[in-house]
Amino acid sequence: MDEVLADTIGKFIAIYNEKHNTDFTIDKLQPGKEFHELLPAYIRYTLREYINEPGFFRDIPVMQGALEVMPKLAEKYDVYIVSAAMEFKNSLADKLEWLNEHFPYISWTNIIFCGHKIVNVDIMIDDRVKNFVNFDGRKLLFTSPHNMAYDEYERVNTWEEVAAALL
Amino acid sequence: MDEVLADTIGKFIAIYNEKHNTDFTIDKLQPGKEFHELLPAYIRYTLREYINEPGFFRDIPVMQGALEVMPKLAEKYDVYIVSAAMEFKNSLADKLEWLNEHFPYISWTNIIFCGHKIVNVDIMIDDRVKNFVNFDGRKLLFTSPHNMAYDEYERVNTWEEVAAALL
Repeated sequence: MDEVLADTIGKFIAIYNEKHNTDFTIDKLQPGKEFHELLPAYIRYTLREYINEPGFFRDIPVMQGALEVMPKLAEKYDVYIVSAAMEFKNSLADKLEWLNEHFPYISWTNIIFCGHKIVNVDIMIDDRVKNFVNFDGRKLLFTSPHNMAYDEYERVNTWEEVAAALL
Repeated sequence: MDEVLADTIGKFIAIYNEKHNTDFTIDKLQPGKEFHELLPAYIRYTLREYINEPGFFRDIPVMQGALEVMPKLAEKYDVYIVSAAMEFKNSLADKLEWLNEHFPYISWTNIIFCGHKIVNVDIMIDDRVKNFVNFDGRKLLFTSPHNMAYDEYERVNTWEEVAAALL
């Protein structure tokens, strides 16, 4: 969900530039950096506070291209949305409302909030290689600044490339 | 989670007996009845209202024996708690808090809220046979009034029987 359907880094950048007078851009994350590594030590602790705030996950921008490609994927495949959301209690209802707003054709039966992604599926689109470790199916690594160093997976840079790979 | 770790029917019975002057007992559910089938038509609609109320899932009694057996299971196995919670948005935070209170040794990484239980596990303990249909592993049907008619699965009537089967 985050960094594949939801532009969570985009929201981090907007918050810090607004509240902490930083001038982050997505380019500064290249290559291989996590967002929190950009933060000066004196404000790094604030990241978890923002994530834990009710509402944080409710208004995150949708990743470019996802709104166009997802309905076509859902026509061809049995699409599940799987988010490692369980670390943040207040994210759960926000994430569910966000999904219902932007992807209303994905039934509640096909939404999974978890920690470890031990799901029995054929294809996984994810930005975190750790989620591929115990997964035997086809792996599509969705490009995100933090995963640029990995070259052992089929990579999709955009939702248009997801469409080209799967439709 | 419901009817295996959490005595959700017990809470339904308590609510209806208190608020609607009914005199339900768990015995009246035998054999093969769903709780909602007990409800007279004029109050049947209230069931979803109670389930959707914030707080409903926060104070459900723990099933007898679960507090004693679960720590031993968690020592021997990599235990995941998988709940088909996604139909009820307000249940998510309540269920997570409830699990953290009663089963604090189960990490957030091992908690899954979903619709369809498409989990990649070896053993499943569940009260709903529908969750066994696409599952290849060992199936333990935890006895609940609604599942009394099924005899094609390994049955566990109590948490003591779960212990006997798995420890």
